[in-house]
Amino acid sequence: MLKGHQTWVFESKPVILSSAAVGGPFEAQGNLAEDFDILHEDLWLGQDSFEKAEKKMLEEACEKAIEKAGKKKEDIQFFISGDLMNQIISSSFTARTIGAPYLGIFGACSSSMEGLSLASLLVDSKSAEYVVAGACSHNAASEKQFRYPTEYGSQKPPTAQWTVTGAGAVLLGRNGKGPRVTSATIGRVIDMGISDPFNMGAAMAPAAVDTIEAHFRDLNIDPSYYDVIATGDLGQVGHRIAGDLLIKHGLKIPPEIFTDCGILIYKKEQPVMSGGSGCGCSASVTYGHFLNRMRKGELKRILIVATGALMSPMSYQQKESIPCIAHAVSIEI
Amino acid sequence: MLKGHQTWVFESKPVILSSAAVGGPFEAQGNLAEDFDILHEDLWLGQDSFEKAEKKMLEEACEKAIEKAGKKKEDIQFFISGDLMNQIISSSFTARTIGAPYLGIFGACSSSMEGLSLASLLVDSKSAEYVVAGACSHNAASEKQFRYPTEYGSQKPPTAQWTVTGAGAVLLGRNGKGPRVTSATIGRVIDMGISDPFNMGAAMAPAAVDTIEAHFRDLNIDPSYYDVIATGDLGQVGHRIAGDLLIKHGLKIPPEIFTDCGILIYKKEQPVMSGGSGCGCSASVTYGHFLNRMRKGELKRILIVATGALMSPMSYQQKESIPCIAHAVSIEI
Repeated sequence: MLKGHQTWVFESKPVILSSAAVGGPFEAQGNLAEDFDILHEDLWLGQDSFEKAEKKMLEEACEKAIEKAGKKKEDIQFFISGDLMNQIISSSFTARTIGAPYLGIFGACSSSMEGLSLASLLVDSKSAEYVVAGACSHNAASEKQFRYPTEYGSQKPPTAQWTVTGAGAVLLGRNGKGPRVTSATIGRVIDMGISDPFNMGAAMAPAAVDTIEAHFRDLNIDPSYYDVIATGDLGQVGHRIAGDLLIKHGLKIPPEIFTDCGILIYKKEQPVMSGGSGCGCSASVTYGHFLNRMRKGELKRILIVATGALMSPMSYQQKESIPCIAHAVSIEI
Repeated sequence: MLKGHQTWVFESKPVILSSAAVGGPFEAQGNLAEDFDILHEDLWLGQDSFEKAEKKMLEEACEKAIEKAGKKKEDIQFFISGDLMNQIISSSFTARTIGAPYLGIFGACSSSMEGLSLASLLVDSKSAEYVVAGACSHNAASEKQFRYPTEYGSQKPPTAQWTVTGAGAVLLGRNGKGPRVTSATIGRVIDMGISDPFNMGAAMAPAAVDTIEAHFRDLNIDPSYYDVIATGDLGQVGHRIAGDLLIKHGLKIPPEIFTDCGILIYKKEQPVMSGGSGCGCSASVTYGHFLNRMRKGELKRILIVATGALMSPMSYQQKESIPCIAHAVSIEI
């Protein structure tokens, strides 16, 4: 049910029956290693291309989530997924493996919460009983497609971010035990004219702020409602800008509850510049770390605000600025 | 509400308040020229790149649909769109222009009906009052991205298809007059091992057949229920294969009601090999031609089965076969 301008309230509160996170070798050295279900020592996952490795991670995340819920592939009625690869091949080839009716989505790094929003809508509207939503990214596959092959060793500015090698998936159902999705705020495209692909955090921060403001306005609640409000992958630079913008707009989020998946995932000594990014960042941190903390009773209500930069190498080459978006999903236990 | 395994029945029957189709110079010489709202003589639409021309077509289709319904951009609560460009930039940049909360989707040429299915679900579940769904493609932008720049003059086999330069959009609402969306069957990924990107019709035909069968099984009706059953862009080659496969599976669709958007859009003498293709094919033919015929009273019930080939140039280069999908939407007046 629509509340306000852009927030869906899920009256039946769809249940996250299970979730899984898969990561690469760099994530295994990170801050949240313990929250991953599967960690790979090999960046290639034994595949002959980084693209196939990315797909394999997503397959593993989905299969793990299905297994953890005690379900089978055949029980899954719909699969919703997105990723950064051209024509979202990681998601579509995973859909072939899963075999369920499939809705491909693209919201760049916001795909994780776009997928969870739609999956929740399907369950809440009785259009499905069991839905799997997933998202993934692979550092080397992304560098190759969006920037330069890593072999070039090109230098990056401190505002740049490190694409997470990771995948996350949830299995959503109508009944059962687990954290529940209570609402989703679908974001508008916000473009402040930034065109530097090495400063995505700054480009995406206004989109995150726009969606966060919309969420609290639509639901008529304030930030104290949540134990954690986490942006997707703004990194250090973008997260600071988002905090400043929120204060400017009169919305004070206490710093102890306001965080960012891209800041949390790596250790300070890891050379990730401003922090982590990619569809796999908010997907693995939410579906691994945050949901684990909820299940342990450490967190009761969280708001995940996944951010996405909707440009392509082509739009950048054609001197376009970066249109950005953020979708926020509220999860409660 | 889910019926059977993969079909949503929309109890409130969301109304198509308006629709619009935009085409290029080649479409202006085609079979359905009269059904386009806007036809461009200039393949560039006065832009400095084919990508920007594609985006402009989609913007025009959306703006025209909004105008025809007597609405304003500000009335649109959600915008759902997909296209073939890497990172669906045509849709995302159009979302920036429209300004509504945005859900980016990717189902290759099935994006038109994936978008209409989701838009209908949003309206039916009271998650929105007014939603615009769109899709587009541009022949030269697609050739450049997926094949060779047109300047190379590369030869094509007779099984190849011609990407439509076109865009289509609908404005869906809860109340009002117009054709109504009654159900949607979401397709599974079907991959029969075909890897020739110059024979997409043959690759996609089994996916179309799978979804058509699922539609009739889930709703427990037979093909005679419809005045027209149109596949998205199988072309001559794929459409013949689909017809044969359906007969093999015991589902006889009378040839006089079974057609294909990619066959209908161009004249026989136009050099399009097997027929039209691209997200703009089923979008412009459905949102222009078919809906016009419904409004004139010539058709009462139609089923549009938009087909999509979910590969990328990268997956082809890596010797993967082509995973295909089809989503079917039933429209009645």
